[in-house]
Amino acid sequence: MNRRNFLKYVSIAGASLGLSGCAVKQFSFGPRQRKPNIIVIFADDLGYGDIGPYGHPTIATPNLDRMAEQGQKWTSFYAAAPVCSPSRSALMTGRYPIRLGTDESVFFEWSADGLPTEEVTIAQALKNAGYATGCVGKWHLGHLSRFLPTNRGFDEYYGIPYSNDMRVDPNMKVAKDVNFRESATLEKMRNPENRKGGWVPLMEGEEVVEYPCDQTTLTGRYTQRCVDFIKKNSDNPFFLYMAHSFPHVPLFASEEFSGKSRRGLYGDVVEELDASVGRILDTLHEQELENDTLVVFTSDNGPWLSKFEQGGSAGLLRGGKGQTYEGGMREPGIFYWPGRIAAGSVVMDIGTTMDLYKTFCSLACAKTPDGVQLDSFDLSPALFGSGSSPRKTFFYYRYREIYAVRHGEWKLHFITQGAYRQGEPKTVHNPPLLYHLGHDPSEKYNVAKDNPEVVEEIKQIAKEHSESFVPGESRYKKRFDWKDS
Amino acid sequence: MNRRNFLKYVSIAGASLGLSGCAVKQFSFGPRQRKPNIIVIFADDLGYGDIGPYGHPTIATPNLDRMAEQGQKWTSFYAAAPVCSPSRSALMTGRYPIRLGTDESVFFEWSADGLPTEEVTIAQALKNAGYATGCVGKWHLGHLSRFLPTNRGFDEYYGIPYSNDMRVDPNMKVAKDVNFRESATLEKMRNPENRKGGWVPLMEGEEVVEYPCDQTTLTGRYTQRCVDFIKKNSDNPFFLYMAHSFPHVPLFASEEFSGKSRRGLYGDVVEELDASVGRILDTLHEQELENDTLVVFTSDNGPWLSKFEQGGSAGLLRGGKGQTYEGGMREPGIFYWPGRIAAGSVVMDIGTTMDLYKTFCSLACAKTPDGVQLDSFDLSPALFGSGSSPRKTFFYYRYREIYAVRHGEWKLHFITQGAYRQGEPKTVHNPPLLYHLGHDPSEKYNVAKDNPEVVEEIKQIAKEHSESFVPGESRYKKRFDWKDS
Repeated sequence: MNRRNFLKYVSIAGASLGLSGCAVKQFSFGPRQRKPNIIVIFADDLGYGDIGPYGHPTIATPNLDRMAEQGQKWTSFYAAAPVCSPSRSALMTGRYPIRLGTDESVFFEWSADGLPTEEVTIAQALKNAGYATGCVGKWHLGHLSRFLPTNRGFDEYYGIPYSNDMRVDPNMKVAKDVNFRESATLEKMRNPENRKGGWVPLMEGEEVVEYPCDQTTLTGRYTQRCVDFIKKNSDNPFFLYMAHSFPHVPLFASEEFSGKSRRGLYGDVVEELDASVGRILDTLHEQELENDTLVVFTSDNGPWLSKFEQGGSAGLLRGGKGQTYEGGMREPGIFYWPGRIAAGSVVMDIGTTMDLYKTFCSLACAKTPDGVQLDSFDLSPALFGSGSSPRKTFFYYRYREIYAVRHGEWKLHFITQGAYRQGEPKTVHNPPLLYHLGHDPSEKYNVAKDNPEVVEEIKQIAKEHSESFVPGESRYKKRFDWKDS
Repeated sequence: MNRRNFLKYVSIAGASLGLSGCAVKQFSFGPRQRKPNIIVIFADDLGYGDIGPYGHPTIATPNLDRMAEQGQKWTSFYAAAPVCSPSRSALMTGRYPIRLGTDESVFFEWSADGLPTEEVTIAQALKNAGYATGCVGKWHLGHLSRFLPTNRGFDEYYGIPYSNDMRVDPNMKVAKDVNFRESATLEKMRNPENRKGGWVPLMEGEEVVEYPCDQTTLTGRYTQRCVDFIKKNSDNPFFLYMAHSFPHVPLFASEEFSGKSRRGLYGDVVEELDASVGRILDTLHEQELENDTLVVFTSDNGPWLSKFEQGGSAGLLRGGKGQTYEGGMREPGIFYWPGRIAAGSVVMDIGTTMDLYKTFCSLACAKTPDGVQLDSFDLSPALFGSGSSPRKTFFYYRYREIYAVRHGEWKLHFITQGAYRQGEPKTVHNPPLLYHLGHDPSEKYNVAKDNPEVVEEIKQIAKEHSESFVPGESRYKKRFDWKDS
């Protein structure tokens, strides 16, 4: 038995035989026998129920269907927050946003702060382990140079710095050939008419390269960038973070997809994302990289329900964006790695975007940062079929408080609130509400009275968690003084 | 080119070349080159969202997942009524229940009537075309001998004659070895304690063979009967109607499945149904019949929501059993026929259980009854990928009225009502409510004001339909006088 076959066998059996777990895991089944590539495809405001594998009846997603059929579908996979910046900060660091000070709001075009620069992003961790790193799409963790992807562990960046309904910051660096000052006057931006989409800048590295960004071609351009990145790095391990700008409103589809879906514009946009997923998977296949690459598909938070037909659907889950009901934070979670992940497998255990940090570090033999309290679990046992997810508990934070806690199948709500940007009436529940998410995934039946010992146990878990650390200072206080809304 | 290959080519191309459409279709791709077998697996009160392919997060249905992945998932497939007997009468006849007089209620143990005997059931039509016909499971179209399956086109019958929450009719024929009179006294049956499940009779042919029926082993026994039927008929075309008694309440799972699901007892029961589906598909594979057999999986109506955790979920659809919102009548609809139906295909067109009548007759070269107005469309173009579903319009009947009409993606509600057996407040809408089911599958946004011409068009369609026939006389008036509830 030569060394290559020996290692392959070890890897299949999952036994370490004296090798470190990490050393074993770096050997995948593809022809290159190297550290695996990692791709995260991250949608924006996509609901749990918005794609075929999660039951949407009128949005056609043949590529995501294929990804789930040939990969693994998680049915309890969570974003770490029900809104954008906190959710993304947790994905990047493997930590609850409350530790980072990014939990309270989202960054705006007038924000003068970002994800704390002392945090070690997953891109930095993987870069330190020899990975080429690329970020394509929406960032939303600070748009000043020191907060941008190229200063946070990514070799390259192409995308919009925050949400696609935001405007430009007149202080931003601008490429020489962009006629920026003319269209970005404060006067123009203060006109509400000019906020109806299309006033977000497109960046390359740390410079604005297009303003206003043409959003109709954005998904296609992101996809091309990603295809190029994969091809360019086909001979060395890479980490690609592909953060789509959609289906966050305002919605734009390309000419090819406009008017094609039964679901209207929202469906057109999601079907274009699906086609993009197909191009990524096809590129991996063409480059003979599919057996060397883990692809993860998920989203940053639930659907923006108050946008009516332009908002998505959380399927059978209650609530949406901004809420700590399941619909606000539970997301599609599809893991794809032919040869390593069992085709058509379904995982009902708990996983979160924070867990990607340790999972990726484990697969990549990357060092996790010293002296940092991670809120991350290595999901490998569940992904590769050797066991269950190590995560048993999840805290649903909103603003700076624990609104709810999931522990096993139980979920205890201390606070709930209404739909995002619809007044959001906040209700404190004393006694708290208890739901069994296994029996009652739609959070309809409060069973607190019948299970007082469960209520007490979860209250204690929340108390111990809160007392175990000091929240980070809010990162939403530093602002440029031109803010006008 | 020999005759066999010639016909295969014709069948693939879908061209008739002078042969009748029927003659072409009888040739399937399996080794036997004969008329295809047909199996309908019919669940009871299963919701649109209750299985993996339609997005349930805590019920594991690996066999239905496989059936959808290797077959075809319909996302707008309807039962013809939101409650049991009307729905089943439509499946059996390809006609709206209002034509049959079966629309107003459901049959009870004191009912002295049934599906009109002059109606030609799909079993009769297929039997006339040379099919062996078997019925296993819940019937619910009349429990007196002349209404039972063996007098309505089926060679054999094994199952319960109506819902599993009903009691015995003391007038029924009983097998010699069954101690029936002792346990079936009116006094015992009048005791509400004795209604808590388990007081339904099990029949073989036209005789009660077990009373009270042990429901814990019912799914397994049905499955074994079906496996035996398939094996017995492996050399001639057969039609098997497998109508499960669950997940209608009261719920019973076998020892093997009890307590196994994350969804509680409801999940246990559905997971046992899923395992049953697996056994059927495995049997077809073992018997080398899978390329010769069309298998259809669907349900009779939506989830019984007022049963709380013991009722199912319609997923993202509004409403449930007894209602004419989508959740009451739209069902999982999975079609499986390896070699004929494209694996992993998804159909978003409209189909109904009534359409199975013409579809099956077409596949089987069976004659449809003369002089009978069928409400059935041959779904073959959509099933086999040559075109779209011919059905464009669907009437949602409740009691003896049209409550709603779907026409294309539009749905107009004239009347809506509350959850089944929860008071069911009825609301007449004048002007009617208009929803776009493509854009708004959850029926949230009434867009009647913006689309007055659509409202008028659908009103006219409903009027013409209603004026085109005389409703059948109600079949729920003849009763035994021992009725006591």
